[in-house]
Amino acid sequence: MSTSIITLTTDFGYPDGFVGTMKGVILGMTPQVQLVDISHSVAPQNVFEGAHILGRAFPFFPAGTVHVAVVDPGVGTNRRPLAAKIGGQFFVGPDNGLFTIPLEHAEKTGDHFQFVHLNNPEYWLANVSHTFHGRDIFAPIAAHLVMGIALEQLGDAIFNPIRLTLSAPTKGKDAWQAHVTYIDHFGNLATDLSAEILADSKIRSVEILSHTIKGVVSSYGEGLEGELIALIDSEGFLEIARVNGNAASTLGAKSGDNLTVKVNPA
Amino acid sequence: MSTSIITLTTDFGYPDGFVGTMKGVILGMTPQVQLVDISHSVAPQNVFEGAHILGRAFPFFPAGTVHVAVVDPGVGTNRRPLAAKIGGQFFVGPDNGLFTIPLEHAEKTGDHFQFVHLNNPEYWLANVSHTFHGRDIFAPIAAHLVMGIALEQLGDAIFNPIRLTLSAPTKGKDAWQAHVTYIDHFGNLATDLSAEILADSKIRSVEILSHTIKGVVSSYGEGLEGELIALIDSEGFLEIARVNGNAASTLGAKSGDNLTVKVNPA
Amino acid sequence: MSTSIITLTTDFGYPDGFVGTMKGVILGMTPQVQLVDISHSVAPQNVFEGAHILGRAFPFFPAGTVHVAVVDPGVGTNRRPLAAKIGGQFFVGPDNGLFTIPLEHAEKTGDHFQFVHLNNPEYWLANVSHTFHGRDIFAPIAAHLVMGIALEQLGDAIFNPIRLTLSAPTKGKDAWQAHVTYIDHFGNLATDLSAEILADSKIRSVEILSHTIKGVVSSYGEGLEGELIALIDSEGFLEIARVNGNAASTLGAKSGDNLTVKVNPA
Repeated sequence: MSTSIITLTTDFGYPDGFVGTMKGVILGMTPQVQLVDISHSVAPQNVFEGAHILGRAFPFFPAGTVHVAVVDPGVGTNRRPLAAKIGGQFFVGPDNGLFTIPLEHAEKTGDHFQFVHLNNPEYWLANVSHTFHGRDIFAPIAAHLVMGIALEQLGDAIFNPIRLTLSAPTKGKDAWQAHVTYIDHFGNLATDLSAEILADSKIRSVEILSHTIKGVVSSYGEGLEGELIALIDSEGFLEIARVNGNAASTLGAKSGDNLTVKVNPA
Repeated sequence: MSTSIITLTTDFGYPDGFVGTMKGVILGMTPQVQLVDISHSVAPQNVFEGAHILGRAFPFFPAGTVHVAVVDPGVGTNRRPLAAKIGGQFFVGPDNGLFTIPLEHAEKTGDHFQFVHLNNPEYWLANVSHTFHGRDIFAPIAAHLVMGIALEQLGDAIFNPIRLTLSAPTKGKDAWQAHVTYIDHFGNLATDLSAEILADSKIRSVEILSHTIKGVVSSYGEGLEGELIALIDSEGFLEIARVNGNAASTLGAKSGDNLTVKVNPA
Repeated sequence: MSTSIITLTTDFGYPDGFVGTMKGVILGMTPQVQLVDISHSVAPQNVFEGAHILGRAFPFFPAGTVHVAVVDPGVGTNRRPLAAKIGGQFFVGPDNGLFTIPLEHAEKTGDHFQFVHLNNPEYWLANVSHTFHGRDIFAPIAAHLVMGIALEQLGDAIFNPIRLTLSAPTKGKDAWQAHVTYIDHFGNLATDLSAEILADSKIRSVEILSHTIKGVVSSYGEGLEGELIALIDSEGFLEIARVNGNAASTLGAKSGDNLTVKVNPA
């Protein structure tokens, strides 16, 4: 049998040992698993950011991977805990939209998906706190999934998981209105405008926060030191960057900001 | 044989590669082990904080786990390096009180414990520096422990390991004086007042740093946005939090701060 | 077969999930590998710092380890991607000097080394972006190396990998001019003056940024609280530290700063 993988994406941070505690629970149940940290620096309670970080990473994991995500302002209330199988991978966490990107991706591609409400306490820790379901519910569920339990055993089917409203670009006359979706550690701005949707039309300029960037380049190294550039990022979306610098702080940009992308017709 | 686990808790931080170096030493000796980071963000030289972080995480690891903790202002002096078996788990690090919480827990429950002074250099790296015993002594000792060596082989028995003085709540007339023990990444305040000690008496109010919080709630979601709340945390202790906010920065609180917890008699 | 090890050293940071994505690619190809993070906090685009962090950690990993390092301002340009075998370990990353320390070490010891230009796309991901070769080229190459592929299969031999110019101390009359090479998380300053080169001559004083430190001690605990001290670090080089404090911020020191080290003749 090949080793199984559990990934973890949380807003727990690195200092407090919460993530280590979840790993202790998992390894006590399934000691051979590969544990991979996606991020534990999601801004506290920022479900949207957690969804984007996981949404960019999950496609590079093999079938059978179990992704646990815990950004969970509703912990201990009546928000549902859930598990899902989406296109060959598993997802475990609170029902608050964290898994919107893999779900919408599956709807687009026609991949199978299935959600269950985790309401069978048989597969949780014996004592469940009101504040740390990552440890008490989601970690043991992830361990059971890599150990091969059927999703149906874990709880009742759900057909209406909560979704985030993801931004989408809109088409005007020879221009797109697009939006910043994510700002990374380098200060690069990811947007919701895909190269795919642009098809054969060519970008003439990008206007963002009173700056205008002419044309697109293919790599950071094609710009001048310190220059603001537009390029297609490693996910296939328009990105705004500053060569060897930080575009977000230069522009004062934040998630949700608008861009106007002027194009030549194809 | 099931995979063995070594956890690491240090004040080494993430940038410098010190933790990776310790892992290289361990994996060179025992390549199949599961390595788990508890925290490497303990405040430099803050043994008390390290003890609390490890003290909250260790109970969730299975028997046989080896916990290495290195917060070690005395490295290279005559402070003793030690290893211990406490209630089925192992602990390796400097003799400065880092393992006070598992030790006192074992004394309370009657679990067996045994400490040795690591004074047999046969199980260390060949060259031992004066500044990095994490790499040169504690990492190889942890590897030997997962490989099954008997504690007695590693050095002489110790019966007086150094202990930290942990705070404890005191009972007044219809009130407890309690203390902040740990502040987490969310700004939540952990305290030393356990739900167990409160037994059936009910909390009427919590006074801390000129704020008064009335009553307790069961989950973050029961408070209003931005409200200061008191609740029982995932370890079973009184916690002060701010709903979707940071209680520590709101209150200007720090570890050791006092709280007055008024109760109704049971 | 013993488990193989892949280490990762990058400037990707921890928040964005880039490192997790690389791990997904690797584990999809070779699920049993041990993944070790050396550091992901290299200052953005600072190849020199990345080289020093990896240069201090790699000697503690066993033969066969594959070290992936990605600090890559030239990604997507004509800078070459490379892989190397140096003295029993493997190195994968951009050709920009990141592996200068192991290379110069091998030249000194006479260890064998061999570099190849990664120009055979057969071993990359099918789609290669212009901005994330860590995911698209270096991660799959590392996986192929632990799976046992011969270096020659991956591309053409290189005999002129790019090197950084590492600083070296210079000898004057009864004194050495040395340099700060690295500042760690504790604010300790590593320098390029090795105990080996000092041989039997004794350090009388160290002058740095208008401070003078008399003599050397063997451990942090030998200095007074808050005192600036000089000692030999765990790599065998002169280090400047402040007892239970931060020497770098006290001195306002940075990498490249000069020290004058006065010695008594042997």
